[in-house]
This record gives sequence, C-alpha cells and structure tokens, in this order.
Amino acid sequence: MNRKTDTPVTVIGLGLMGRALAGAFLKAGHPTTVWNRTTSKADQLVAEGARLAPTVGDALRAGSLTIVCVTDYQAVYELLGVSDSELDGKMLINLTSGDSAQAREAAQWAEQRGAHYLDGAIMAIPPAIGTAEAVILHSGPRSGFEIHKATLDALGTVTYLGADHGLASLYDVAGLAMMWSVLNAWLHGTALLRTAGVDAATYAPFARQIAAGVAEWLPGYAEQIDSGSFPAEVSALETDVRAMAHLIEESEAVGVNAELPKLIKAMADRSIAAGHGGEQYPVLIEEFSKPRND
Amino acid sequence: MNRKTDTPVTVIGLGLMGRALAGAFLKAGHPTTVWNRTTSKADQLVAEGARLAPTVGDALRAGSLTIVCVTDYQAVYELLGVSDSELDGKMLINLTSGDSAQAREAAQWAEQRGAHYLDGAIMAIPPAIGTAEAVILHSGPRSGFEIHKATLDALGTVTYLGADHGLASLYDVAGLAMMWSVLNAWLHGTALLRTAGVDAATYAPFARQIAAGVAEWLPGYAEQIDSGSFPAEVSALETDVRAMAHLIEESEAVGVNAELPKLIKAMADRSIAAGHGGEQYPVLIEEFSKPRND
Repeated sequence: MNRKTDTPVTVIGLGLMGRALAGAFLKAGHPTTVWNRTTSKADQLVAEGARLAPTVGDALRAGSLTIVCVTDYQAVYELLGVSDSELDGKMLINLTSGDSAQAREAAQWAEQRGAHYLDGAIMAIPPAIGTAEAVILHSGPRSGFEIHKATLDALGTVTYLGADHGLASLYDVAGLAMMWSVLNAWLHGTALLRTAGVDAATYAPFARQIAAGVAEWLPGYAEQIDSGSFPAEVSALETDVRAMAHLIEESEAVGVNAELPKLIKAMADRSIAAGHGGEQYPVLIEEFSKPRND
Repeated sequence: MNRKTDTPVTVIGLGLMGRALAGAFLKAGHPTTVWNRTTSKADQLVAEGARLAPTVGDALRAGSLTIVCVTDYQAVYELLGVSDSELDGKMLINLTSGDSAQAREAAQWAEQRGAHYLDGAIMAIPPAIGTAEAVILHSGPRSGFEIHKATLDALGTVTYLGADHGLASLYDVAGLAMMWSVLNAWLHGTALLRTAGVDAATYAPFARQIAAGVAEWLPGYAEQIDSGSFPAEVSALETDVRAMAHLIEESEAVGVNAELPKLIKAMADRSIAAGHGGEQYPVLIEEFSKPRND
C-alpha cells in the first residue's frame, strides 16, 4: 500500500503532545506547517524542517489536513474562529482532550463552516507518538478518516470507531477506566501478598495471567448484555457475593485497604436487591448504567 | 514423566466441588475413597467406581493422600478431629474455602497430629475440575506438593506458591479482586458506550485489548514497588488525576454510575495529598497497603 509522505499537514498547538505529533509528521517526510501562540515552542521543529506559520489562517491554508491539539475546546473555537473562512473544504482533526458532548458540538461548529471534521483521542504519552504503541482513536465520517489514514499512520496505530463524533472520547475514558482498574486490582493484590512477605515482582505474573485470562471472557459476556438475558451458566451473583464478602474479610484481617472490594460487593448487593441474585455477573450492567444518587 | 494413576486417594466432603474432585480422580484411574455425612451424595461416584467409606477414620486409612473440601474450617476440625490419630504420617490437602489465618491455624493443628498439610484454593467452578482451565493453588511445605503433584495433576492446573500456608488463600482473593475489577471496568465502559448506541459486542474487543495490554505493564511496575522508588517515567500522578476527573465528568454527563471512577480518583487524590503527586502510579501501593477508617 502506498504510504503517503508528501501530503502537507498542519499542526496547531505545540504543547508537549502537539510537538510530538508535528515531529512524527516531519520524521515521516510530510511537509509540516505549525502554529503556536508562543512561537518559541516551534524552534526545535523548525530546525527539523517545519515551517512556522505567522497566523492561524496561514497555517490552515498550508495543507488540506489540519490537526489541532490545544488546551481545551474553548481554545479551539477561539483560535480557529478568527479565521473560520479558511475552514471551508478543509479536513480538521481535533485531538484536543474533551468529552463526547464537546466533540459533537465542535463537529457541528466545524461542519457549519464547511470543514470535514474528525474528533480524536490520543491513548499515549507524547514520547510514544510515532510508534505503534500510540493508539489514536478517531470518530466522525468514515470517508474523511479513510482519505487521510495513510497520512495519519505516521502518528501511531490509528483507529476508526464510527460516525458519531463522541465515540473517540467515550472509548478513551472507557479505556482509562480499564487501565486504572487493572492497576488498582493489581495494587490491592500486591498489598495483600506483601503482608505474607511476597514481593511485588513475585506476585505480578499471577496478576497479569488473571487479567489477561478474564479479558478473554468479555466478548462472550457481551452477548449476554446485548441479548438482555443473563442465565447463570458459570456462576450466580448470589454465589459470587459470598466470595466478595470473603475478599473484604481477608483484606481487613491482614490490614489492607478494603474500599475496592467493598465497592465490588456494594454493586453486586444492589443488583441482588433488585432481584438478580440468580443471574450471572453481566446483569450488573443495569447498575453500571444508571447514576447513583446518595 | 510418569503420571501416577495408581495412587489411592481419599476425598472427604461431597458437595458440588468435592464430587467434581473425586470424579476427576476416578476418571484419571485412581482408586478413590469418598466420605460424606449424607451418604447419598456418593451414589453417582460409587456407580463410577468409588468406594464409600463408612467413617472418616476409615476414609483416612484408605490412602496416603486425603483431600478435604467441606463448608468451612470449623467443619474440617469437627470431622477430622474425631479420628485424629489417623492423621499421623498422612498427607492432608485442605481445599475448603477460608482465609489465610485459618489456613495457618489448620496447618498447625494438622502438623501437631503428625500430618503433612497443604492448604489449597480452587480458582474454578466444579464443571471445570479435571481440565487445564481449573487452577488449583497450593501452599505449605514444597516436598509435600512435589511428592503428590503427579496425582494432583488429575484435578487441573496445579500450582505451588510457597511454604506459608496462607498463600493459597491470599493469591485466591487477590485473583478474585482482579477478576471483578476487569469485569467492572468493562461494564463501566460498556455502559458509557451504550449511551452512544454502541452495543456490548462492539466494545468488548477494545476492552479486552486494553486489559491485556495493561496486564503486560505489571511486572515492570512491580520493580518500582520492590525498590520503593517511583520516578514518573511515563506519567505523574498529578497528571493522571486530571484524566480521572475527566472520566468522572463524562460518566456523569452521559448519566452512568460514577462510583468506580470516583474511587479511582479518591485513592489518587489521597496519595497526592500525602505528597506523591510527582511520582508514578505504583506509588499508590502506600494507600492500598493501609486500612481506611472513616
């Protein structure tokens, strides 16, 4: 496949992440135009071959594809609003952090100005940009993503999620919830095992194996959610809570923090109180899907 | 390697799990003696070739290796205490559910009566017993485990954890904490994505990939814990909490339960308050290692 390296790209916003993005485009051989309020942030990139645009309007004119990565969505509107006539017909990919509602609003705003708009989320730290490890999520019209995918490949592993511009943000935060949950469960287990003199390195491979093993169940469990039917094929919730109580008791007995197991059990207890004790774990989706107000 | 199939084994306690254990020994060709208070629970096993012992003492005499799997540790003492002279010189493996302190006490009790004692934990449901999927953890003197490993192999994937009899219970509950944490993070993400019309089956592969990917970090992060030094090589905690706040806000904005992200952030906030904002995530081990009293 033809990996385009001659498509001119523009990067607006040269924080740590913006500089990493522009650097990756340069490294892949793209003519790269940059703009930042504080121009000194561009010095290193200019030394590497980037062109510093004097105005946002000039930056937008330089290429058919513009990446914007600034502090927040308000900054996007302030910066691009000044030269919004330049947006007409351009491809704008917004990698600024925000939530799904902000992404959908920005899409409307950009499309009203004639731009093709994709919202994105970066699941990586700046030093990983340009490597396969950097996962960059995109949502919005598929055609826009496909036209520019070969160019975006310079940034890392680029993924298309769907037409709803809010998806990149939702997948991003869902992924973060998984990341911190795996880390916290590992920390909880490490704390438990350290009470018996087991060091973290000894316990880690066990935790890794359990996490990876349970991850394999998810597609199958997802079928229960999508069908709305939760037969207790493996275990019923009312059996699970006895083991949850045991986890709390053991945690308290050895003197480690028990908040994580208590939250686990509280969710299950509520589901049982709602009449789901004889069903399987994924029935908890009903508890996770509604706000808790107390 | 010689897989022993002629070692006589005894299984005491024929609940769902005990019957599965005895059935797996029979299937592997071991002469199997069983005992249960309610003898009718043995009917099927006897039809498959098991011998039903009339008393616990008789059951203990039948083989050099006895597995006990009953309701709780109190039941272990009550049943075996009657014939405790029969324990002398025997190998006793206790797969009854309990905590690490109970395991250590039971080891003392058994060793005072001349028995070799291993404590175990079964990370599987009864139908999985006898397959590689059934992970059975053992702790206690290594020699006892090694002498009987070839026999225990009939039950599933048998693992030795260390000399401290409490380890099987601790690894077991730590593994459960990981299991429910991965499932809950997946449910939280599924709830988020469903607000945008994404079904559970579409989201599950993404959750699986993140969980399996983060699991790979654990051995490296464990080194920070064991060294007690947490340089922010990837990200500092004070940066992470901004994304945690974002996760809470997005969860609340789309109307899903936000308790999980709130707990994640609360732990990090406390660590930052304790002066660790510039350090990396595994520094949270200090919060996880102490009880929270409020």
